[in-house]
Amino acid sequence: MKVLVHIMLKEGVLDPQGKAVEHALRGLGFAEASSVRLGRLVEMDVAGDTATARERVDSMCRQLLANPVIERYQIEVG
Amino acid sequence: MKVLVHIMLKEGVLDPQGKAVEHALRGLGFAEASSVRLGRLVEMDVAGDTATARERVDSMCRQLLANPVIERYQIEVG
Repeated sequence: MKVLVHIMLKEGVLDPQGKAVEHALRGLGFAEASSVRLGRLVEMDVAGDTATARERVDSMCRQLLANPVIERYQIEVG
Repeated sequence: MKVLVHIMLKEGVLDPQGKAVEHALRGLGFAEASSVRLGRLVEMDVAGDTATARERVDSMCRQLLANPVIERYQIEVG
């Protein structure tokens, strides 16, 4: 089944890349954008049932996909 | 209001980064993962009402955040 993982920096962790994008947006005239933060998206097919898939993907996040020290992640199955 | 933009490579566009992650997952014993594709996530606050915000963020995507030639994007407002 299709699994989508959202990975974002935790609140309080500085995001210079997001700041750079915000600055660029302002330069283009998009003054209404603020608190821009960037993250990663991982889409994959995972074999097995929903509960097992979620558990396995959580394991993948902890071991490879995310850095749990500074990032939070959210898993969407199905 | 909070706006979330999902940016992914279009179907058919090769994703070597996704392939590398898939290979690494297999190396860690996660053989059930396949068709891994990576994307970007942009989170921001946008001033104004829902319809205007969506339109403005669409404009930001076309001008800066995404490459519409090879990427598709999806905007979630609120």
